Formats: sequence, C-alpha cells, structure tokens
Amino acid sequence: MNHAAAVWADLARIRELRPLVLNITNDVVTNSTANALLALGASPAMTHAPEDAAELAAYAGAVVLNIGTPDPGRIASMLAAGRAANEKGAPVVLDPVAVGVTAYRRQAARSILDQVKVAVIRGNASEILFLAGEKAQAKGVDSLNGSDEALDAAKALAQAQGAVVCASGPRDIVTDGQGVWYVVNGHPLMPRVTGLGCTATALIGAFAAVNPDPLLATAHAMAVMGLAGEMAAEEAPGISIGPGSLQVRFYDALYQMGEADIVARLRMVRS
Amino acid sequence: MNHAAAVWADLARIRELRPLVLNITNDVVTNSTANALLALGASPAMTHAPEDAAELAAYAGAVVLNIGTPDPGRIASMLAAGRAANEKGAPVVLDPVAVGVTAYRRQAARSILDQVKVAVIRGNASEILFLAGEKAQAKGVDSLNGSDEALDAAKALAQAQGAVVCASGPRDIVTDGQGVWYVVNGHPLMPRVTGLGCTATALIGAFAAVNPDPLLATAHAMAVMGLAGEMAAEEAPGISIGPGSLQVRFYDALYQMGEADIVARLRMVRS
Amino acid sequence: MNHAAAVWADLARIRELRPLVLNITNDVVTNSTANALLALGASPAMTHAPEDAAELAAYAGAVVLNIGTPDPGRIASMLAAGRAANEKGAPVVLDPVAVGVTAYRRQAARSILDQVKVAVIRGNASEILFLAGEKAQAKGVDSLNGSDEALDAAKALAQAQGAVVCASGPRDIVTDGQGVWYVVNGHPLMPRVTGLGCTATALIGAFAAVNPDPLLATAHAMAVMGLAGEMAAEEAPGISIGPGSLQVRFYDALYQMGEADIVARLRMVRS
Repeated sequence: MNHAAAVWADLARIRELRPLVLNITNDVVTNSTANALLALGASPAMTHAPEDAAELAAYAGAVVLNIGTPDPGRIASMLAAGRAANEKGAPVVLDPVAVGVTAYRRQAARSILDQVKVAVIRGNASEILFLAGEKAQAKGVDSLNGSDEALDAAKALAQAQGAVVCASGPRDIVTDGQGVWYVVNGHPLMPRVTGLGCTATALIGAFAAVNPDPLLATAHAMAVMGLAGEMAAEEAPGISIGPGSLQVRFYDALYQMGEADIVARLRMVRS
Repeated sequence: MNHAAAVWADLARIRELRPLVLNITNDVVTNSTANALLALGASPAMTHAPEDAAELAAYAGAVVLNIGTPDPGRIASMLAAGRAANEKGAPVVLDPVAVGVTAYRRQAARSILDQVKVAVIRGNASEILFLAGEKAQAKGVDSLNGSDEALDAAKALAQAQGAVVCASGPRDIVTDGQGVWYVVNGHPLMPRVTGLGCTATALIGAFAAVNPDPLLATAHAMAVMGLAGEMAAEEAPGISIGPGSLQVRFYDALYQMGEADIVARLRMVRS
Repeated sequence: MNHAAAVWADLARIRELRPLVLNITNDVVTNSTANALLALGASPAMTHAPEDAAELAAYAGAVVLNIGTPDPGRIASMLAAGRAANEKGAPVVLDPVAVGVTAYRRQAARSILDQVKVAVIRGNASEILFLAGEKAQAKGVDSLNGSDEALDAAKALAQAQGAVVCASGPRDIVTDGQGVWYVVNGHPLMPRVTGLGCTATALIGAFAAVNPDPLLATAHAMAVMGLAGEMAAEEAPGISIGPGSLQVRFYDALYQMGEADIVARLRMVRS
C-alpha cells in the first residue's frame, strides 16, 4: 500500500468507527481540539476531574494528556486516566507543552512518564530537546529551535521511553528510535492559530485508536494535519486568508478531506 | 397566535429585555455558549466559583447548569446558584452531559435534582433514558439511542421531576409529562460542531427567562436552534459548508433571524 | 510623529519582537485572547496555577490579569505572577470584569491592587466607576453606564492608583489622571462577540511590552482593537456580517493590518 492509500485507510477507519478519544487537556484548546476531533470523524470527550477521568478512560480508544495549563487536579486526572488506559491497552499520547519552561511542568511531565506507559509523545523541537536532556530554547510555549535540530534528541527520547516521538515543525519528524518519517505538509500561517500543535496531538490519539502501529498512526495524523492546513489556506475568490479564516476552514477541511486530496498533496517520506 | 408568531414573540422579547443568563457550564463550551447567547440577544454571565455563583444568580433571569466537565467546585457552584435561583423564582435549566457514563456525573446530577428545583432538563436520548431509570447506550458524550426511543422516558422523567424534559435529536421531543411538542428543524451537520447540545440548553435558559411557560419556552428555543442551524448550512456562492463554517454562520443566523425566517421554515407540532 | 505613525510603530515592533504576554484570565476568553495575541504578532502564554505562574511571569514582557471567572487558585496565580512581573519591571494590566457585581470579585480586585503595582486598568464604564468609588450600574458583565460618564472616575482612579485607566465603550477614554486620549474607532457589532473587552486588555499587554509609555501603549492598543473591528465588519460580496463572521475576520484583520489601514481609519485625539 502506498503512503497516500495508508493515510486514507486510517482516515476512513476513523470515520467508520468513530473512536472515543478522551482528552485531559489545557484551558486554551478544550473547545478547538474537540471540534477538530469531531470534524475528523472521531468522538471526543473531555474531563479534568480525577473523580471522572479513570472511568471515562475505560471507554476510550485513546487517551490524550496535555500539560498546557497544569494544576494538581488535572495532573491527578492525567495519571488516573493514563493508568486506566494502560490497563485496558488503549494508547496514551502526551503533549508536554512548555515542559522546559517551568519546574511545575517538568514535574508534571516526569510524573506522567514515570507512572504511565506513553505510546506517543508529540512536542515542538524545544520540548523534545528538553525531554531528551538536551539544551533547548523556548519563548513560553513557542520553540526557538527548529524541528530538524531535534532529530537526534527525538530518536534518543524514543529509545529511552520506548515510545514514538514526534517533533513537529515545518518538517515534522516522527520516529520510534529506529525508523524516521518526515512529513512536510502544512502552511506557514498555522502557527498563528493557537493550539494547532495541541490539535495535532489530539488527532494522533484518533489515529492511534484505529491503527495499532503508533509510528504509522502518528505519521498519518501529522500528514492529515498538514493537508488540512494547506486546504484551509487555499485562496478562494474574494477571501484573503488570515488566522481566523484559516482555523474555520481547517475544520471544514478535516471534514471534507477525501482520498483525492491526500493523493494530490501528500508529502511524507521514510528515511 | 400561531406557532411561528409565538416563537418570534419570544425571540423579540429576548432582544428587547436582554435577560441575564448565568451559566455554570463545562470547559468545552464556555466561549461558544456565551457567543450564542450574545448573538441571540441575551446577556450571558459565566462563573465556576461557589464564592461567586449565588450572588450572580441573584441578578439572573435564568440559571443554566451543565455537568459536562464536573469537579467539586463546579458542583458546589451549581448547587449554590440553583438554590439562589429557586429563592428568587428564576428558572433553572439542567444539562446532564454524559450522566450515564461515570459515577461522578450520576452523583452530580442526583445532587442537583435533589437540592434544586429544576424547571427544564435537556439532554440527548441516552441521558434522558438514563435519568428516567431506563437502559441507555452512550459513547462518551454522544448518544447511541435515537430521540424517538426516549419519548416514554421523557414523559416519565417530566412527571417524576415536575419539570419540562427535552430529548434532543433529529426530531426534538419536548414534554411536561402531558403534552408533547416535536421540533424537526435542524441540520445533519450540527452534531459535528462541539457543544451545540449545550448551546441549546443555554438558549432554553434565555427563552425561559422571558416566557413563564417552560414547555413553550423550551420548544421555542429548540426551534430557534434548529432554524439557525438550517440557515447556517445554506449554501452560499463559492462556499462549501463544513463544521467550521457552520459554527460561524450559526452565530450570524442567531443574530440575523427575523420573523420571516421563522414563518418560512418552522416545523414544530404539538401532539 | 503623528498618531497613525506612532500606532504603526508599536504594531511593527510587536511583530518584530514577538513579546511574550502571560495571561491569567477567565474561562470564556482563554482561547480567543490567545488567538488575538497570535494574530497581532505577540507570543501568548496562559496559566492558572500558582505553581506555574510566577516562573512564567519571569519570561514575560507583560502580564495580563483578568478576574472574569475568579477562583482561589486563579487569584493566587494572579498575585504570584503580578509580583514576579513587578520584580522584573514588566508591566501588569488588570481587567476587573464585573468587579461591582459580587463581593468575591471586589475582594479579588482589591487584593490585586493592594499587592501588585498595576500599570494599566481597562474596564467598561461600570467597572471603572465602581473601582473609583462611584455609583455604577451593571447587568452581569455588561455596563449600563456609558464610557463618557466614567471620565472623572477614570481620572480619579488613575491618580489614586498611579496607573493608566481605560474606560472602553463607543468612545474609549484613556487617561493617566492628567492627559486624556479618546479613541472612537470600533463597530457597534463588537459587543455581540464575547470577550472582546478582555481581548482589548490582552492587546494592551502586548503594546505595553514594547512601548514604555503606558498611556500611549494603551491608546494605541485600543486604536488597533477598534480598527480591526471596523475592518472585520466591512461588507464583502455575498457576506452579511454577523457576530460569528465578525470574530473570524477580526483575527484576520489583526494579522493583515498595515500602515495604510491605520492612516486611513485612525480616529484618536488627545484632549
């Protein structure tokens, strides 16, 4: 099966099975990631209460943990949901937002990685470098490192954690510590919409819920992210696309994307 | 007064009086329900702190309680606001999101129904079946039951609680345990936008703030929801509507809806 | 330098320097203010945890505190971040949402003003009147007073706090207690989008991060808000603008605004 056919097969499967993706995520993206998952075809659920999280996780096809606005209740919820997902064998995806920036985020990420078996970690280059123990530069939640700088760190982190690692950027790197996929779909305006990195992580959850190979699931999710961004940014008569229009049309593109769009646009390679 | 004239009268009254609708709601829809209420013509207020909730409720024309992302502080806020609304005679509307899915949500809904006099309960079919003590099937926050399956349960729940009950779906059921209204306005793309069910509940709050008959207020609110969805989904030159565009145009439609739109499109019947 | 050139110089500087603006804000606007700051060209960061706030503030070019959905954790975070910003000399901007409406909000605002040196306070007329000790009328988060009624109160509050005060409305008032700027850009549909007042406060943070004169920074930010609202509301072929479209196009306008737009439209005067 060629790459485009494989991406399309996963997307079609999400639309058919509508996997429940449980998100314990940050304040900023609760609404936008739920909308992205619905537009894609998955069934999102969100919670932030430890009392609620483990029980919801028991129904989930994948669990997405995001430390973007951490607090004690959310971290306890992530640990409870992550352990419940591990018990039933559902994949857990971690987004270590700004992990290198504050001690509290470092502790949160450390607790999760110590207590939960994580299948996929997706971050920007700074976050991946930091988790791999390298020197990283960030401005708040934004990376000052390019994704290509993070290749060796991504491989090392993948090996250390036994997880797939994605360092996203203009060229996304996806690795299990051995093989590497590069995905170059996307659009330069995407970083001007808040939380599209978090949205990528949520989509990885949906793909991991239907594809048992987390390396492929992650690469396919990043491809669909980039494709939807490109489709959203296409000029239409009388419309000059800015970040507001891009976000609206991004949801439309996730919903409307067909096999022909993937075949025509996909740019992913395995090295 | 025919049905369309009655719906329009309530909508015009909301735009004239701009009732304050206090929402203690979930993380996912805080922004989207505030925008829907503003577009409709009401004045939304949101809080999640027990310290703040009762005092705000004292100014409110209606109070909307939504258990979509429950936590102890939010539930305490809902109880405080609900009791304050009861004391001043303002209607309380409950959205029991995913009530059948976790024990914590069951307890939250139970506490509210035990301690607060609720005027209207709006949920999907699974939620209404569950609250009525029937067997229900849900996938996370989504119902696997159709709204027509919930007719008897809705009537029984309405009688047991002394409340109006709405089981929403392609055909909305609204009942006080005796009479039943059916509203069939709406569009199949609406479930692809997160939280439009929660938005319906918030709009019921606005209608209940201006119409003292909760059965009519609920039916009229569901009609306006469906009408706005239909108006939003109308094809425009060069626009192919997906979930992102639908949401944006839904707010526009709530703002722009006139009597002629209601007359031309309304499909609600009393049985 | 004329007014338009001065506004443009600040906007260009934000786009060049991409200052980190830390927001401890309310549930309703977390996503929308992050998107507005990104579209403008700044780098937003959001948190609500005391454990996280001070450390993030140490990296910030400005800190924005908003009491729209207060709770004990958020208030502690605001105090911690505000003090950290004071120590490093970064400006702190306060949005006292609905401060006159509940005792809890009054206490929150009082704690912040007592413990943190605030550079700018932006509110609607009711909020400014209330903070100045005057009689104010509000419906929930909405002012029932016009901004022109708040001129004397704004001056008095500015003098009492040693801060710049902005009372926003159809005609924005910006004063340091001596000089007054009036900004009359804007569009009547803007109050129908939730949280655009909070967005104004966040933009003030970005301008204050690049312009050391808080009076000018605030006036320039309010001008860019109003200009973006006007640009967003412009009729396009086949589009009838409602609140949903306005919000989307507002982000686009923040991103696309050039010097010519400012020159053509700016309406601000110093009295």
